[in-house]
Amino acid sequence: MFDVRDMLNHPATWLSGDGEESEIIMSSRVRVARNLAHHRFTHNCDHEELSDVLSEVSAAAGSTKTFEKSVFVGMGEVSTLDRQFLSERHLVSRDFLHNSSHRAVVLNGAEDVCLMINEEDHLRLQAFGSGLDLNRTWATATRLDDELTNGLDIAFSEHLGFLTACPTNVGTGLRVSVLIHLPGLVHSKEINKLLESLNKLSHTMRGFYGEGSEMMGNFFQLSNTATLGKSEEDIIKSLREMASKVVGFERRARDMLFAKARSLLEDKVWRAYGLLRYAHSVSTKEALSLISAVRLGVGVGFIDDVSIKTLNRLLVYTQPAHLQKLEDKAMNAQERDVARADYIRGLLTNPES
Amino acid sequence: MFDVRDMLNHPATWLSGDGEESEIIMSSRVRVARNLAHHRFTHNCDHEELSDVLSEVSAAAGSTKTFEKSVFVGMGEVSTLDRQFLSERHLVSRDFLHNSSHRAVVLNGAEDVCLMINEEDHLRLQAFGSGLDLNRTWATATRLDDELTNGLDIAFSEHLGFLTACPTNVGTGLRVSVLIHLPGLVHSKEINKLLESLNKLSHTMRGFYGEGSEMMGNFFQLSNTATLGKSEEDIIKSLREMASKVVGFERRARDMLFAKARSLLEDKVWRAYGLLRYAHSVSTKEALSLISAVRLGVGVGFIDDVSIKTLNRLLVYTQPAHLQKLEDKAMNAQERDVARADYIRGLLTNPES
Repeated sequence: MFDVRDMLNHPATWLSGDGEESEIIMSSRVRVARNLAHHRFTHNCDHEELSDVLSEVSAAAGSTKTFEKSVFVGMGEVSTLDRQFLSERHLVSRDFLHNSSHRAVVLNGAEDVCLMINEEDHLRLQAFGSGLDLNRTWATATRLDDELTNGLDIAFSEHLGFLTACPTNVGTGLRVSVLIHLPGLVHSKEINKLLESLNKLSHTMRGFYGEGSEMMGNFFQLSNTATLGKSEEDIIKSLREMASKVVGFERRARDMLFAKARSLLEDKVWRAYGLLRYAHSVSTKEALSLISAVRLGVGVGFIDDVSIKTLNRLLVYTQPAHLQKLEDKAMNAQERDVARADYIRGLLTNPES
Repeated sequence: MFDVRDMLNHPATWLSGDGEESEIIMSSRVRVARNLAHHRFTHNCDHEELSDVLSEVSAAAGSTKTFEKSVFVGMGEVSTLDRQFLSERHLVSRDFLHNSSHRAVVLNGAEDVCLMINEEDHLRLQAFGSGLDLNRTWATATRLDDELTNGLDIAFSEHLGFLTACPTNVGTGLRVSVLIHLPGLVHSKEINKLLESLNKLSHTMRGFYGEGSEMMGNFFQLSNTATLGKSEEDIIKSLREMASKVVGFERRARDMLFAKARSLLEDKVWRAYGLLRYAHSVSTKEALSLISAVRLGVGVGFIDDVSIKTLNRLLVYTQPAHLQKLEDKAMNAQERDVARADYIRGLLTNPES
């Protein structure tokens, strides 16, 4: 049963702030794309076929051990605000906000694994972990993949591997990513050089919400681009190595910043903290930027009484749909700015709340 | 004995935050200009004559009851920083910063009364009070005036009254002023209209440091312009009435602001508080502006755990010479900004310090 209140009270486990490098790498994610062999791809399906796919996949999901205790959310049966809420939790893609009929997501209580049905591909399963935790996250995803594949006839070519709606996913259907916080590289202006070199190395970095989203709060999604001609293990190993390298670059940039402009940095960090702690109206964009500065302050050791867990939670819970769900009413942008500031002040004052 | 440490530890009594309307009127000041009959005005004196005036006036001051326990500071005997320190406490004029030889100031421990010798006039005695407290302040000034006049031959014309170096002071030699905080009138843009009407009514408003200083932190000095053709009592009564009227205008402007833009105002006030509470580098100008916003927040009731006394003290103690005296070393602007932020954080965290 889809219960927003319950989800609000239990932040996803990947927000825990645990895991390797969690000061710089917020979370790890593995996404696997699969399609049914005997159906057209989602974008070519009529309503009837979409409905058939939904039924088949739902049934298969219901019979897995992973989703023994699960929540099934039919996108057409919930409000736009609910869909936005799920998107803010990274459980459904933005695509689901507008295309809801015959679309669904299946998720568990810990929110460490979920399955979108009839997104770009018939099945898009995702697993999440806190910090740099790709091995365990991959294990979760592949277990679900195995469980689902048991009962379904998956489109697969001996020559190409798994077939997907978009050629960029053909092969493994695997996209591995980490949400990484790079204020040091942004401040030192090294970020553009890094973005360029990553592209040459079959990796890419995108904004907070993935493809096409803008850079906000110095958060980036680092992911693989190639899904074909490499094994799953190689793709994960390669992203893991790349993530560690980027973390190294970020640490070096922070050290330089610390050595060359400590006072400036300290002032910037504490001003951000002061504003979060006392402002009575904060936009999404400003919140991201202030949270980013405080996260950097925690990372370099200026601030020691704010946990990464609190900052992770702030990032997710200060988004528009979360605020409206928290207040249990529709709010315009101005009202949300006030509610956002209230929520931030509350959580910083009493992190256990 | 001039002891900066002692003065630092004991803020002037006019910073106490007591007195009528002290949320809007920071302090009251009465200044009386007098000259010796048998000497040329200061600007026409050679060194010898300046020295003679200094001796005569010092001797007279030393014999008064007001200065029974007093501190005599020869401007030529102290550092530029000390002179600046005294100027920041409003005990000497800016003129004394550059012209020091044969100039002096006599003051008492409470700093509610002082006497400048060889400023524009041979004697410039000042009395200070907290809030709107002109009657008592005038009583202090006139008592000292009487005590001094006993032993000195003061330049006086039956026709014009007291003679002064500048014609604008001839007559009573009296300048009465209040330091008044008008953020409401500045925000509502009514301040310029008010400044114009005051000029027509023989009053004027100037910046924080008086004549020629710019408007900072929404603080103004409201004072009389006419010193001739009116009795001292009338001048004081008239300024008192004018100050009450301006306070009324300011309250009305605050009420409007509160009614029309409460959220905006609340956010502005608390952001200022958050920055003061946590910033690690703050310029004089920003400090004034932030202190001004917090003072407004206290006035309209948003903030109740910061006293006017603390805010008054911040205004005076965050000035450049005060910071250098507090740290007991010379500091450049950048170092002062850091020291200023430290001092503010300290006083807001522990107001008794």
